[in-house]
Amino acid sequence: MNSPSDSPDPIVLRDEEIFAAHAGGKLSVSLNTPLDTQRALSIAYTPGVAQVSRAIATDPTLAARYTWASRMVAVVSDGTAVLGLGDIGPAASLPVMEGKCALFKTFAGLDSIPIVLDTKDPDEIVETLVRLRPTFGAVNLEDISAPRCFEIERRLVEALDCPVMHDDQHGTAIVVLAALLGAAKVLGRDVTSLRVVVSGAGAAGVACAKILLARGIRDITVLDSRGILYRERGDLNAYKAELAEQTNPNGLSGGLSEALKGADVFLGLSAGVVPSELAATMAPDAIIFALSNPDPEIHPDEARKYAAVVATGRSDFPNQINNVLAFPGVFRGALDAGARRITEKMKVAAAEAILSVVGDDLAVDRIVPSVLDPRVAPAVAKAVAEAAAE
Amino acid sequence: MNSPSDSPDPIVLRDEEIFAAHAGGKLSVSLNTPLDTQRALSIAYTPGVAQVSRAIATDPTLAARYTWASRMVAVVSDGTAVLGLGDIGPAASLPVMEGKCALFKTFAGLDSIPIVLDTKDPDEIVETLVRLRPTFGAVNLEDISAPRCFEIERRLVEALDCPVMHDDQHGTAIVVLAALLGAAKVLGRDVTSLRVVVSGAGAAGVACAKILLARGIRDITVLDSRGILYRERGDLNAYKAELAEQTNPNGLSGGLSEALKGADVFLGLSAGVVPSELAATMAPDAIIFALSNPDPEIHPDEARKYAAVVATGRSDFPNQINNVLAFPGVFRGALDAGARRITEKMKVAAAEAILSVVGDDLAVDRIVPSVLDPRVAPAVAKAVAEAAAE
Repeated sequence: MNSPSDSPDPIVLRDEEIFAAHAGGKLSVSLNTPLDTQRALSIAYTPGVAQVSRAIATDPTLAARYTWASRMVAVVSDGTAVLGLGDIGPAASLPVMEGKCALFKTFAGLDSIPIVLDTKDPDEIVETLVRLRPTFGAVNLEDISAPRCFEIERRLVEALDCPVMHDDQHGTAIVVLAALLGAAKVLGRDVTSLRVVVSGAGAAGVACAKILLARGIRDITVLDSRGILYRERGDLNAYKAELAEQTNPNGLSGGLSEALKGADVFLGLSAGVVPSELAATMAPDAIIFALSNPDPEIHPDEARKYAAVVATGRSDFPNQINNVLAFPGVFRGALDAGARRITEKMKVAAAEAILSVVGDDLAVDRIVPSVLDPRVAPAVAKAVAEAAAE
Repeated sequence: MNSPSDSPDPIVLRDEEIFAAHAGGKLSVSLNTPLDTQRALSIAYTPGVAQVSRAIATDPTLAARYTWASRMVAVVSDGTAVLGLGDIGPAASLPVMEGKCALFKTFAGLDSIPIVLDTKDPDEIVETLVRLRPTFGAVNLEDISAPRCFEIERRLVEALDCPVMHDDQHGTAIVVLAALLGAAKVLGRDVTSLRVVVSGAGAAGVACAKILLARGIRDITVLDSRGILYRERGDLNAYKAELAEQTNPNGLSGGLSEALKGADVFLGLSAGVVPSELAATMAPDAIIFALSNPDPEIHPDEARKYAAVVATGRSDFPNQINNVLAFPGVFRGALDAGARRITEKMKVAAAEAILSVVGDDLAVDRIVPSVLDPRVAPAVAKAVAEAAAE
């Protein structure tokens, strides 16, 4: 583990190495039992399989036991907001979705398939997934642009009787909350008393603000590219207008300099920049999460001059805030519990479980576990399943 | 190998054994490279994957090289005509689709995913697959009822720039043609001179009649549940009416007894029954393919009294006619060749390749290779790819 003043070298990846690793795709379909005898063939296919199909036709609940669908996660994208690359289309988003499926398998043992859609129309996306319903047991929405992602997720949650989660919103929000709980704890602060600035009102910004509200944090100020969200601003879409109602208790207006003055927490979820002179105006013992990737809003070495705890999205600095700490365990827990929805309570439980794995190792440069820590997903799954059962 | 007079015992499957083999489903998703280090994670997911997505966004043809989609077969059903079970719905059809995917992997090394649709509307099925287009590289339609299957396949072939095949039609037709070529050869007959009766005008019956016509067989009589198809019959749908135009050169009408009298070949593709006294009216050295499963239209032991060559769909009798001899190699060959369509020529080439594997072992009780013969799919793939290239 590295101390804040001792950043490791970043991982340098050569293009040839990256492309070689993606050649042919990153996933395969494999058989649970080999089909190498006439008998095995007769069991897995005709005539044996007819018994299983007939049984499910008679009792539909048996589909959960005798097919992979009930524990299969569809990783769904329309390619409109891929990583930091924007609207690059469904085909170009597929390597990311395959990667996501690989992470589901690695960390939660869940099978998943990438489904990339050649439509951006929310009606068509919802309709398509409703038609595909018997194919899967849960939906991980991925890299769908805001504000469309809010409507698509809301409508799918209503239309499908299975867990649905847009990971760019809630996976991020869960890990941010976990990290903020850790930062507050290590600093001996009450998390609900923190003054938080959220820079970015897209998918992640909106979800982060909401989970922080759900966790009892009252003083949150959210900014979009035009500045602070406040009730009287006339240019807000419905989602931002709702946030403006629920946040900004001091009625601030203006930009980042007005928001940051005296703030305890900066949460960067946009591609913006935080100048050092603004970071310097934050309260003592400040917390800076500069999550823009690959270029944080403020370099961590610089941020440490003004903040007691610094986190980024990068693996080459301490405190990497990465969705992979959340989504494998969240889906695993929801499916284990047979949950139909992923509730705010389950998300908060997930965040607390992530923090619990850090345990006594908690330190300013260790507010979240390593993304490779194999204890995380089982702990999250257990907490989420318990929260679902309540 | 068993001689005609020495039928093996059928494989007896216990229910417990069948259900145990299907528990949890028959497929898994696996990773081509493990994600067990921070470096592997950075290559397969962020930040490395962004390079690959960016490259595909710039040059869409790279999707074929760096994702699994271009060689991925979507195995698609609406559950309307599942095995002999009928319209049991998409969820109950899923065990069959998983089995199909297992066969694709086993025999052709192709990855495939089951997609079961909660709609029976041809417009919606076509529309859904068009939206899913970037997800896969080919479509195997399965267990979709006639006559809907004809329209759905035709429209998908037009709408999608990738191989599309309804296996219940063309997989069956290819293997039937292979077996008929083998039977004619072993009997020293010219296949084009045979008088063929096709019992059943559903998906398989229509496709079999068409491939036999494509191979030059002129005297074909097709029956549906109401009797022989002839031009003047007023109750024919468009597909049957088209067949009535192309077949029945002698203008027969009536039922099975009228059709079978003096016929060389009986091809059973319905759940009907062929009484012994009718089989006895066929020409000398007759050929009977009683493909109804699990109960052939006439028991093979009985059929052998009247026919020189007998085949069924069952694994416990000689000459098992099973689609698995065709579809893995057909899709593999089409994908290897980068073909956009699976043409009638490619299907005939597949049939000839299946027969070629039998080679010098050709005998009345060995007109097709064993379904487990590992030489079949590669031979079919090669022949199909060559036919596609022409």
